[in-house]
Amino acid sequence: MTAPRFDRILLTGAAGRLGTQLRRGLAPLCRQLRLADMAAITDLQPNEEARCFDLADMQAAIGATEGVDAIVHFGGVALEQSWDSILNGNIRGSYHIYEGARQNGVKRVVYASSVHAIGYHRLADHIDANAPHRPDGLYGLSKCFAEDLGRLYWDKFGIETAALRIFSSFPEPADRRMLWSWLSFEDCVRLVTAALTAPQVGFSIAFGMSDNAVKPVDNRLAGHLGYVPQDSTERFRAVVEARTPSPDPTAAAVQCLGGWFVDLGHPDDGAQG
Amino acid sequence: MTAPRFDRILLTGAAGRLGTQLRRGLAPLCRQLRLADMAAITDLQPNEEARCFDLADMQAAIGATEGVDAIVHFGGVALEQSWDSILNGNIRGSYHIYEGARQNGVKRVVYASSVHAIGYHRLADHIDANAPHRPDGLYGLSKCFAEDLGRLYWDKFGIETAALRIFSSFPEPADRRMLWSWLSFEDCVRLVTAALTAPQVGFSIAFGMSDNAVKPVDNRLAGHLGYVPQDSTERFRAVVEARTPSPDPTAAAVQCLGGWFVDLGHPDDGAQG
Amino acid sequence: MTAPRFDRILLTGAAGRLGTQLRRGLAPLCRQLRLADMAAITDLQPNEEARCFDLADMQAAIGATEGVDAIVHFGGVALEQSWDSILNGNIRGSYHIYEGARQNGVKRVVYASSVHAIGYHRLADHIDANAPHRPDGLYGLSKCFAEDLGRLYWDKFGIETAALRIFSSFPEPADRRMLWSWLSFEDCVRLVTAALTAPQVGFSIAFGMSDNAVKPVDNRLAGHLGYVPQDSTERFRAVVEARTPSPDPTAAAVQCLGGWFVDLGHPDDGAQG
Amino acid sequence: MTAPRFDRILLTGAAGRLGTQLRRGLAPLCRQLRLADMAAITDLQPNEEARCFDLADMQAAIGATEGVDAIVHFGGVALEQSWDSILNGNIRGSYHIYEGARQNGVKRVVYASSVHAIGYHRLADHIDANAPHRPDGLYGLSKCFAEDLGRLYWDKFGIETAALRIFSSFPEPADRRMLWSWLSFEDCVRLVTAALTAPQVGFSIAFGMSDNAVKPVDNRLAGHLGYVPQDSTERFRAVVEARTPSPDPTAAAVQCLGGWFVDLGHPDDGAQG
Amino acid sequence: MTAPRFDRILLTGAAGRLGTQLRRGLAPLCRQLRLADMAAITDLQPNEEARCFDLADMQAAIGATEGVDAIVHFGGVALEQSWDSILNGNIRGSYHIYEGARQNGVKRVVYASSVHAIGYHRLADHIDANAPHRPDGLYGLSKCFAEDLGRLYWDKFGIETAALRIFSSFPEPADRRMLWSWLSFEDCVRLVTAALTAPQVGFSIAFGMSDNAVKPVDNRLAGHLGYVPQDSTERFRAVVEARTPSPDPTAAAVQCLGGWFVDLGHPDDGAQG
Amino acid sequence: MTAPRFDRILLTGAAGRLGTQLRRGLAPLCRQLRLADMAAITDLQPNEEARCFDLADMQAAIGATEGVDAIVHFGGVALEQSWDSILNGNIRGSYHIYEGARQNGVKRVVYASSVHAIGYHRLADHIDANAPHRPDGLYGLSKCFAEDLGRLYWDKFGIETAALRIFSSFPEPADRRMLWSWLSFEDCVRLVTAALTAPQVGFSIAFGMSDNAVKPVDNRLAGHLGYVPQDSTERFRAVVEARTPSPDPTAAAVQCLGGWFVDLGHPDDGAQG
Repeated sequence: MTAPRFDRILLTGAAGRLGTQLRRGLAPLCRQLRLADMAAITDLQPNEEARCFDLADMQAAIGATEGVDAIVHFGGVALEQSWDSILNGNIRGSYHIYEGARQNGVKRVVYASSVHAIGYHRLADHIDANAPHRPDGLYGLSKCFAEDLGRLYWDKFGIETAALRIFSSFPEPADRRMLWSWLSFEDCVRLVTAALTAPQVGFSIAFGMSDNAVKPVDNRLAGHLGYVPQDSTERFRAVVEARTPSPDPTAAAVQCLGGWFVDLGHPDDGAQG
Repeated sequence: MTAPRFDRILLTGAAGRLGTQLRRGLAPLCRQLRLADMAAITDLQPNEEARCFDLADMQAAIGATEGVDAIVHFGGVALEQSWDSILNGNIRGSYHIYEGARQNGVKRVVYASSVHAIGYHRLADHIDANAPHRPDGLYGLSKCFAEDLGRLYWDKFGIETAALRIFSSFPEPADRRMLWSWLSFEDCVRLVTAALTAPQVGFSIAFGMSDNAVKPVDNRLAGHLGYVPQDSTERFRAVVEARTPSPDPTAAAVQCLGGWFVDLGHPDDGAQG
Repeated sequence: MTAPRFDRILLTGAAGRLGTQLRRGLAPLCRQLRLADMAAITDLQPNEEARCFDLADMQAAIGATEGVDAIVHFGGVALEQSWDSILNGNIRGSYHIYEGARQNGVKRVVYASSVHAIGYHRLADHIDANAPHRPDGLYGLSKCFAEDLGRLYWDKFGIETAALRIFSSFPEPADRRMLWSWLSFEDCVRLVTAALTAPQVGFSIAFGMSDNAVKPVDNRLAGHLGYVPQDSTERFRAVVEARTPSPDPTAAAVQCLGGWFVDLGHPDDGAQG
Repeated sequence: MTAPRFDRILLTGAAGRLGTQLRRGLAPLCRQLRLADMAAITDLQPNEEARCFDLADMQAAIGATEGVDAIVHFGGVALEQSWDSILNGNIRGSYHIYEGARQNGVKRVVYASSVHAIGYHRLADHIDANAPHRPDGLYGLSKCFAEDLGRLYWDKFGIETAALRIFSSFPEPADRRMLWSWLSFEDCVRLVTAALTAPQVGFSIAFGMSDNAVKPVDNRLAGHLGYVPQDSTERFRAVVEARTPSPDPTAAAVQCLGGWFVDLGHPDDGAQG
Repeated sequence: MTAPRFDRILLTGAAGRLGTQLRRGLAPLCRQLRLADMAAITDLQPNEEARCFDLADMQAAIGATEGVDAIVHFGGVALEQSWDSILNGNIRGSYHIYEGARQNGVKRVVYASSVHAIGYHRLADHIDANAPHRPDGLYGLSKCFAEDLGRLYWDKFGIETAALRIFSSFPEPADRRMLWSWLSFEDCVRLVTAALTAPQVGFSIAFGMSDNAVKPVDNRLAGHLGYVPQDSTERFRAVVEARTPSPDPTAAAVQCLGGWFVDLGHPDDGAQG
Repeated sequence: MTAPRFDRILLTGAAGRLGTQLRRGLAPLCRQLRLADMAAITDLQPNEEARCFDLADMQAAIGATEGVDAIVHFGGVALEQSWDSILNGNIRGSYHIYEGARQNGVKRVVYASSVHAIGYHRLADHIDANAPHRPDGLYGLSKCFAEDLGRLYWDKFGIETAALRIFSSFPEPADRRMLWSWLSFEDCVRLVTAALTAPQVGFSIAFGMSDNAVKPVDNRLAGHLGYVPQDSTERFRAVVEARTPSPDPTAAAVQCLGGWFVDLGHPDDGAQG
């Protein structure tokens, strides 16, 4: 029997929606999975160990990267939130993870970027991974930051990053937009696995979607990752369309990749009211 | 059971070769199909109603668009013909249909454009949908006009258009060129269906071909339509090649997407002789 | 002394704003200038002859092209007008002129296309001449048609066309948009002269602007015409800015090349009220 | 006499090398110039007012944007420094300035970005402004962040930004790299002036160099800013070349736009030693 | 039963690794296969004839092309060797074959080019067939020469060439690089067959790889050849990875398409020691 | 007074049309100019030394590169000639020169490539330096070879090459094609000087033309060479046009960059008659 590919992988955001899927999905790839999250994880499996800390805690974050072969960084704020939350969880937090990788000699990072890093591009533009950033909120802005951070750490320090722009990873497509943006949980695991095991990553960006019939972006530049999606929204299509009204094709939220995020105002405006 | 996606669809050119296929193919998509053609349609089905008129008749054409949810515009002249026929059937006729859509609030048009709108581009160029028009005759010129008309009505009036550049839609591939240009009738129905039901169309151009092994154009920019062809010419290949001579690779009709249309002279030259 | 480059040039729209400039500007290039317009021209010069007719009159239009070496086609409707006017003056009219060129062996046409053929593209896009058509009205749509007509007559019949997309050719820049869109009368003459005398034109598209500091489009693909503008709006800038308010940068009319044309409704809507 | 274009402009980093030049250069454009810097400014002119604060102070930064028509944001850390300095001065600081613009209705920001946002691209690539970010250090990373921030505030809030990627703005070119990267002080003033007064900016990126003979990047996409450089390094060339050795053409610092920045290690490594 | 597609095909390099596969694979396509090689072929089949000569022998090479319908040119030096060997076998040899095609009226050549014609391009660049040559040795340089020769003979003499850039065609993928570069023998036969039978080839370049999950180049521009690979390295992946160490992602041999060829010195350096 | 930039430059083809100009033009750049040619040079100047040999003589060619700082390689066959002449003078000859550079540590080569390396591209394509080779004869084919050789020696051995695609360098433009293709002798000297002194060359390709009004190619990718042409054909235009007939715009020799070279047959056909 072959030994697992990695000795120890650090998974941040392990208690989150996708983190939970990845605990299961990454298990075959490593001897031990180190789970990191602000929330406590109570159902620890034999192949798992846990670290409970805030990504804004530089020392804890760097410490969590000791002794690992690869980092799957899905932690931080996952929605549009206040600037302080974004700054601490995503900007400072991601910096701490990359500093950990650098200081502890970790060679590859798989990062959960997001469609919201490019949310203002339109479907009709059919962008590829070289299109400029167009974040659709502070959340997306922090994803842009972490992508650029990954590129810097590759160019300067030789640490590889696969930045996976997750579109919509949920159990099922919940609305019409998800008919094209959906990433099934199984395909999410396939994508992270491909990113961890690809022969050469350097700094790469991949769009994280299943093999849906409707394809609004061009994933050609991620071809070297070897991600081959297996799922599609076609089997959900009739039901989703029946229960949701036809969208207004001239609405920005319909034309733009980011969907309704482009209609959000500033997250701190409520607090200032 | 789900209600059909549309209440009433207008199908122009309903008595033509493709119109006949679409009567069958579109039936599941709508409660009622309004068939329009200059020729009378005698085998009207229960889900169908007919309008017999010339597209050059502005009032009749606009009237035919009343009360419909979508228009599948396959009517007009389908071959290289005299300027007067092209002008009336395709240029004026298409304008009348779009004016009908605008005046009657129809939200989406699926238009039968043609490879002959880009017939002078070469296979070796592997163009995508952003390549400039290069019509190969008056027929193709009228297709270019209607594409631009559709773009205008989207940009200015918010009416969506999917312009489908039909390559060669026949029962079987009839010559060597059709080994790459063929669109099976079933794939034609799939393409029109995708164009009618895609979540976001705006103004889009798709190349209408089956999944033939030989692919001389790049359909990437139609990815958001969700068209997935299922047929291929490979099963016809041996027979077609056996009965047709090897072409001269330096001939314009072989190098250009438009095929023998590029060798045609002016359609009115005979009349002037 | 050298003989003039051409024996006889046909200038359509000779009584119009630019036609008047071109009568003066083209005089040195030919022995005789044939002026065509619907309006009578009363100040005929010794080197000029006049033809008074409507471009919709096919026979008259074709007749006007007999015995000429080149055609400078600036005639037709020059503003957003009713569909009937556009159809007759620009679509049918341009077809008549090209048929004249074909039937009478005229080798080159210089055509007054317009920024309104691409009016919905944005300044920020920095398009070049290969960008798809995006007309901003029926007027622009007719310019797209005539461009495609020119391309067809080059590809099929070997008649060269330089399509000059005139931006704003007026005595002086009248508003802030014209600070970048202005084409001085002298540069207009230079541009038409270059298009007439370039060694190889084929089918070419050039953006017609002076050498203004603000450059929103890329004229690289017209480099073989040899047009070198000499004027600039910089000397008018302070005055224009002082007398016109700062524009709203999010307005479509400010973002799009077509300016306020993009805000126009359908020209026939008034007549139907 | 014409009133100045702006009533009040906020200039951050006013005590810095370029800030000093801009005090002089922007004076004719506004009635009053508000100078902001951490350092006290002692030679205040009649048309100037001063605000002394740290950009990391959110309240002070937002307050400084009250009552201004435009912001010229040249403040923050100007070299590779510790993460804490970069985070506070450039990431948090720039966010504060943009929040000030948003909360106080300022319509346009001119931002001093840097070649170090794209420092790992090579001269041989001849990138344009659409090339992806490739920062060459934490300083460059913070410039990438502020560019994305500007794009977000344009897309979502309609605040225009011209991000000027300053290459090397010094009194004279000091080494061989500056023979192509130099931006004279006068051209720097011209560039900022163009960015402030361009009719339409949206979110734009310009490369800030003089009209040097050696041109390693393509500034076409900033054409709508109307920046026309007047200076060149040619007059300094012989002297610079005579006093500096020939570079190794295979060295990364010679091949990359960022120069010796690409050879720098992590700025915090010394502190940790 | 249908007659074979070709009467006689000339296969050069028939005794080599791929030549042996092609003897089997091309048999169904022609009545007779003419085998050429410097080495004697002893197991001649009934449908085969042999010519034993050195490609550097112009007269013999031209003679071998008499009476053939198509040439599959896989002969010459297949590795980095001395300049003299490359010059004679590949540069002069390929010229002789093309001269044979021209003098004897052969209409199509299928040429075994190589990844080493573009070996210094990086996986991350995702080049297509229009990318400039970047040979990684004298062997690759000779492949570039023969590609340009093929283009010339198409442009000037109308002889079609499909240049197939073979990546790694071996019985099984032997190392990690081959996990993406592998071309199975069956897919090699499919590719050559497609190139021989495609309706229109002109001068085309195809990347010769199987349908491996990891795809570092873009084969879109060979779409008109109709090559549909059927094999993949996925079934070999676990074994290959288990027996080979993880590569250094910053090594040129890992980043570049050419693999370890980019690390080779000059082949004649040993001889000069 | 400053010492000259180079100690010794080797100039091959020194007795040729351009070599003669470069003897004068390069004199200020070096202490000594080593002239190489097959023809004897009789008017040797004090700063010059001569080597008389055939480039096909490997030992002599390599010997000529000893002790030089840079090579300006303008030698070899300068017209379409027999394969043997091209093979020996240009293919083998250029290889010998590059081997000399490698073995003797010369760091930069300026190579006289030619428009005939890309002669089948059309003016209308407006190619840049990344366009694929399309040689228009054996001469052009050998230029393609030497360009690829230069790229290899840069990628593998770190020897820089500027490949200058000379268009038409003659005392005056002699025909209509030269109105756009002309490179004045002074601009030729400027171009070689720029290529020798540019701060970073790597492997670069430049189009060698003066600043003629008609510009059919895009020289943007040579921007880092710092070549600024000063001459133009405009002053010759009237005379050239008056004495030469109007060309047929559909002729290949008019449409293609290579001019009448595209109409030449095979140079050895005469010898075989």
